[in-house]
This record gives sequence, structure tokens and C-alpha cells, in this order.
Amino acid sequence: MMAHMASPEAFDAVEVIVAKRDRHELTDPQIDWVIDAYTRGVVADEQMSALAMAVLLNGMNRREIGRWTAAMIASGERMDFSTLSRPTADKHSTGGVGDMITLPLAPLVAACGLAVPQLSGRGLGHTGGTLDKLESIPGWRASLSSEEMLRQLDEVGAVICAAGAGLAPADKKLYALRDVTGTVEAIPLIASSIMSKKIAEGTGALVLDVKVGSGAFMKDVARARELASTMVALGTDAGVRTVALLTNMQTPLGLAAGNAIEVAQAVDVLAGGGPPDVVELTLTLAREMLAAAGREGEDPADALADGRAMDVWRRMILAQGGDPDAPLPVARHRHEVLAPADGVLTQLDALAVGIAAWRLGAGRARKEDPVQAGAGVLIHAKPGAVVRGGEPLLTLLTDTPERFPRALDALEGGYFVAPHGSRPDLLPLVVDRIA
Amino acid sequence: MMAHMASPEAFDAVEVIVAKRDRHELTDPQIDWVIDAYTRGVVADEQMSALAMAVLLNGMNRREIGRWTAAMIASGERMDFSTLSRPTADKHSTGGVGDMITLPLAPLVAACGLAVPQLSGRGLGHTGGTLDKLESIPGWRASLSSEEMLRQLDEVGAVICAAGAGLAPADKKLYALRDVTGTVEAIPLIASSIMSKKIAEGTGALVLDVKVGSGAFMKDVARARELASTMVALGTDAGVRTVALLTNMQTPLGLAAGNAIEVAQAVDVLAGGGPPDVVELTLTLAREMLAAAGREGEDPADALADGRAMDVWRRMILAQGGDPDAPLPVARHRHEVLAPADGVLTQLDALAVGIAAWRLGAGRARKEDPVQAGAGVLIHAKPGAVVRGGEPLLTLLTDTPERFPRALDALEGGYFVAPHGSRPDLLPLVVDRIA
Repeated sequence: MMAHMASPEAFDAVEVIVAKRDRHELTDPQIDWVIDAYTRGVVADEQMSALAMAVLLNGMNRREIGRWTAAMIASGERMDFSTLSRPTADKHSTGGVGDMITLPLAPLVAACGLAVPQLSGRGLGHTGGTLDKLESIPGWRASLSSEEMLRQLDEVGAVICAAGAGLAPADKKLYALRDVTGTVEAIPLIASSIMSKKIAEGTGALVLDVKVGSGAFMKDVARARELASTMVALGTDAGVRTVALLTNMQTPLGLAAGNAIEVAQAVDVLAGGGPPDVVELTLTLAREMLAAAGREGEDPADALADGRAMDVWRRMILAQGGDPDAPLPVARHRHEVLAPADGVLTQLDALAVGIAAWRLGAGRARKEDPVQAGAGVLIHAKPGAVVRGGEPLLTLLTDTPERFPRALDALEGGYFVAPHGSRPDLLPLVVDRIA
Repeated sequence: MMAHMASPEAFDAVEVIVAKRDRHELTDPQIDWVIDAYTRGVVADEQMSALAMAVLLNGMNRREIGRWTAAMIASGERMDFSTLSRPTADKHSTGGVGDMITLPLAPLVAACGLAVPQLSGRGLGHTGGTLDKLESIPGWRASLSSEEMLRQLDEVGAVICAAGAGLAPADKKLYALRDVTGTVEAIPLIASSIMSKKIAEGTGALVLDVKVGSGAFMKDVARARELASTMVALGTDAGVRTVALLTNMQTPLGLAAGNAIEVAQAVDVLAGGGPPDVVELTLTLAREMLAAAGREGEDPADALADGRAMDVWRRMILAQGGDPDAPLPVARHRHEVLAPADGVLTQLDALAVGIAAWRLGAGRARKEDPVQAGAGVLIHAKPGAVVRGGEPLLTLLTDTPERFPRALDALEGGYFVAPHGSRPDLLPLVVDRIA
């Protein structure tokens, strides 16, 4: 039952699946065909998911991953930013809890003279989505035509919007499939998914923020480094100046995990305040983007301090129909989680907080689910902080209070207050840099 | 993105897939749920195929396989033969080329006093299907109601028919899925697929013919033995007296691979003639079935010799609308493959002959394809035979002569004539017995 009758197709899906299942390398024509045929619907979802599982368990080598990425790019259109007067730079995060860095970063880097075309996604599961966050701003819209996007890049310098359906459609289809088939965590597939969109988008420079820790896809540094190296190689091979940072996602970034509450935190950063870790990572990534685009001379700290970054933010939000002065939505119910004793907070687990925020309504279980703008978790103490028994550690926010019990379940065992003098055992904010 | 929101379902499909992907044992409740939810359509095809690939690559232990089988049985109805006056015995072959043993075997064993409820399938790929073969008899129909089946078992003693849709529906769905997703060759899934139907069917004794060699699923003896042991354990645990024979499928069984031409060969056997290997295997399996059902005293050779088996055959065919005296369909075109030189035929590869027969129209690539009754391959010399250059080795038969070239391609390298004195290197007909 292994071979199937000949058809006008160059290959048979089962033949390609069986090759990877049996630990053979896929040939270039096999890869080109399977991606194209999947996009055309000739390879069915149940065939692609079996192949994805075989790739997850048996791997792909650098040639296979490069070809897979190229085939996904070839499945759709490519963008062209060569008419812009400024060099382009883009940033991609592999996703974490409280990771709203794109919000202050894009206007900041634009304020330093680059064009920042930031095609973003929606959240799924415990990691938030940049578009969901921005949609808590009244009036703001995520969908732009290519022309609108180019005009905004020219006039404002920064755009954060949904990727058009034309860009790497094979990836869109495969990503949705992987999400429901337990095949998200395959490094070759993660790397090619991210890089196919970034290469097709046509950016000249790319900085990757590869999260590592409980709240990230990559739970340990070795796998995060493997993913980062794979993506840097893919970018370099495609002529994109690519750099990756490995950054800490053992604990949430900043002091908020949700939608509107993360936007508020971004505005704090642009106003010169905000949590120190968010400010530090924003500036570090901005410097990498500027360096990758050949603008080492600019200091992004200046553009933050003198209000230029905030100006770009306001124009960017306005250009997409949003009102930067409108009050952000507020959740209708809150629940405080208090410190159980005096001491030092030694643990605040990113995954626990991420799942709690998700269960409160900030995230979605299915692509078609809505999210609550006001829901999420406010963080009052970060690991290393001295806390007093009875003081709030976390504030849980939702419009639907029946969600509190399951959110609290998620937090069970996710934080720990140790006696005075204890120290958390945490990775540094920036763990490694791969160029 | 790994955990999903709670739902009224006991588990989440991704959770179960990820468990097996990460080499954990599945729990009994996980297995019960995933089979039931797949039958209900809550677990989607693309999720089940990813799980099947993970099972194929990471395996299942005896407890998991037993539970998986029980869950598939529980997905549908069970048959009850306890009202019959005779003990029941059934035989299952894992499928091979020219394997029409069921046709003479069922009436032969019925003639020796057992009831033989033989639920059979259709061919897919290079292995033939018993129902396809019988459908070449004018008027014969494969579908019987449970009542018709019981009545025929009582009155005739043997019935070969299609399994009703109510028996292990989870298996039907999963089998079709595995066929298109490269996940057929997983021993836990093969074993549970076969045994769930046989146990649900309610037979008291079961003899398994596990084929080994190029024309079988199991290409080597070690894997065939693993499959046989797995199935014998499943049957024994479920209270069915189960025995397995490992038999040779390096070369086709008998002298025909097709539909009508295999029926003709079965009639030859029932008439006291037929190819020696088919007669030997039919008698060996009949003795095993009689022994498993506690009727060691009967000698099936007598029932073959005195015409009782032929009588049951005729009544069995008549009971299902067939005319045992009608001429069988004949292919409209033939092509002879001649021996290239004088010598000894040392090789006649089962897979090559099976694919050739399939491409000639005897088999189907898709479940919905029709088969040609007259198509197939007639074999004039078996390995070990002395042949003369220019004499026919094989006759290819089809109604559609444009199929000859691809059938001949399949035979390329599939047979070999060596100098006089050479000997084929073949397994014995019965390689092993596992009880």
C-alpha cells in the first residue's frame, strides 16, 4: 500500500512522508513539490501534519531547511521596499509573556531614521499577539493594503500591521495546522516559518529576539541557540543582515501581561518611564537594528528621552485610525494575589502568568475566538524583589469573573516567596548574541 | 501555544499528541478519549495523523496497544455468534500477492464442522482484496445484514462478506487515514486494527497468517514476528484462542495474482487440484483453525478429496447471489513475458508481481476506484523451476492495453533466470508458528 498510482503530480504525498519518516533527506524537488502541492490543496492537511510530525521527530538538515523556506517564499508574493528613501530594519520575537517590545521599538527605531515594516501576528495560546494589543486602542486597525503600508513607511517611518494574505500563504496554512497537531515545536519548521515571512517581506536587516525559558517555545538555552543559529543562517543565505539575541523568558517581561495593560506600559516607556527590563531590551534591540542597517551612530536613548519616539508612536497610531489620546479599555473585575509572607520573591514563572492571562480572556484558544482588551495580569513584584506578607503580588483582570478560578489554578506553584537573603536563580536579560 | 483552553472534552487532542511525541506512555483515559473523540469527529484527521506518525516513530507498549484495541472495539457494535450450534473460527491474512487462501479455506473448514464468519476487505495498493476477487463471480454480493450472515453461518457454515459499518468504526476511519499519510507500517496500529475487528466480530478461535517478504507489509522476519506476537497477545488477552503463522511472501502464492484468475485457482483447489503451495497452506491453516476450535480429530484433506468442501463453496456462493457455474470474466488483452535464457528461475519477486497486477487493473489506487475482474498476472514458473529460453514465464492480462508498459516497468528486475544448477534462496512456506 506504499506506492500509489501515477498522476499528473510530480510526486506522491505518501512517498515524501515515508522518506522523512524513514530518516531520508528530502530532495529539493520533493520539498518544492510538497509545499506547492500543499498550498494548492493537493497535499491534504492530514498528510502535511504527518510530514510535520516526521520532520519534528527526525529533523531536517541546513539544505532541506533552506529549500523549505525558499519554497514557502515562492508560494506567494514578495514585498519591495527599494523605493523607500530610508533603509529598512525589522525585528521578530519568537513570543513570550508581557513581550510588548515591538510597540515602543518600532517608533523608536523609526525616530532614529530607519523604516520599520513590522508585520505582526495575533496571539494564540499563552503568548500574546502584537495586533491584539494594538487593537485595544479605540479605532486602530491592523489591516493595510501594500500601498497604505508603503505610504505610511515613507511618511511615518513605522508600521505595525497584519501580514497580507499574499505573503507566504504556505506558511499561513502550515502554521495553523501545526498549532492543532502538536507540531509547533520543530526547529526546522519554526525557523522556516519565521524566516519565510521576513525574507518575503523584503527587509534589509533583521534582529531576532529568541526567547528562552518556561514562557517561550524554547525552554532551554541549547534549543534556543539552535533555533537562533538556524534562523541567522537562513537570513544570511538569503542576503538579509541578520542577528539574533537570546533573551530571558523564565519570568514575564515588564509588569503586565495582557492587551490594553501592555499598551499602557508601552506608552510609559515612550514617555521616558516604564519597567527597567522593558526599557533595557527596547534599547538593546534598537541598537542592534540600527547597527544591522548601518546606522551605528544613532543613540536610541536620545530619541526616547527627547520625545521623538513618542511623536512617531502617535503618528503611527493615528495613521491606522487609532486615537492615541483615547482612554484604554479597563477590565470590569479584579482579583488581587497577595504575598503569603515577608521575604524575597524568588520565582515568578512566565508560563504560569501567561496561562493565567490567557485564561482571564487576554488570549485565545482558537484563531476565531475574540480576546478581551482589558483582561490580563498586572505584576507588582519581579523576582529579586523584597515583599511583605499581605501586599499584592499580582492583580488579575477580566470582564468575566467566572474565569478567576482557572486563572488562579494556573498560578498555583508559579511564584515563590523565600526567606530574606534568598536570591532568584535567573538567566540574565540578554543570554547570548548570535550573528 | 501548547496548552489549550478547557472545553467540555476530557482532554485536548494536542495534549495527547504531544505526550506521544515526547515519548510518554499514553494513559488509559487518554487512549479511550482520543479514539472516541476521533470517531465523533472532535479529534480531526490532521490531528490523528500526527498522532499516528508519533506512534509509528515512538511506539506503544503492550498495555497501550491493548487499550487502543479495546477503545476501537468500544467505538462500535459487537457481533454475537453464541446462538450458533457450531464453534466459530476465523482466519486473517496480513495481505500478500496471490493470497486467495480464504476462498478455499472458509468452505473447507466449514465442511469440517466449524462456522467460519469471514469478514473481509477490499484490496488497496499491490495487495489484493478477497471481496474484489469474489465480486468477479457474476451476481455475487459482498454486503449482508447481520441476520443474513447469521442465517448463512447456520445453514451453510461459511460466509465471506464485507464487515458492516457498525463494527469498529474508529478502525475504518483510522485505516483510511493511515493509508494516505504514510502511517500504515506501525506495528501497534496494524495489530490493533486487525484485532479490533476480529475481537468485535466475536469469533472463538483465530488463526493469523502473517506474511513476510517483499510482497508483505512486513519485509523481514523479525518485524513479522513482532507483529504476530503483538496480535497473539491481544487476542489471548481478549479471550480469543489465537495462533499465528509466519508465511513466505517473498514470491507470490500460487500461480495467479488478480481477481477472476485467483477465483479460478481457488476452484481448482476445491476440485482437488491447484498449485502445491496453495494446497499446502490451505490445509495447514485449516488444521490450525480446527485445533484452535477444539476439533483436532478432523482431517481437512478428506473434506477436500471427497468434494464436501466444494459443496460448501457452491452453497456459499449461491447464498450470496453468485452463480458458481457462470463463466468468469476474461481480460481482453494479454502480453507474455518470456524466459530470457535456459536455466533456473531463482527469483520471482512478490512485490514486483503485485504492483504489475495492480497496474494492469486488478487493484486500485483509491478506495473509490473500480477494479478489472479479468486483469492480473498468470505465473507459469515459480522459483526453483527449470525454464527454457523463449518459454512464457508470466502472462499479463488487462482490458486496457495502455497499462502494459507500466506493468512491465514494475517487473523490471523482479525475476531472474540463473544458470542450471543454481538454487533460489527462499524462506520455507511456513517460517514460524507463534501461539
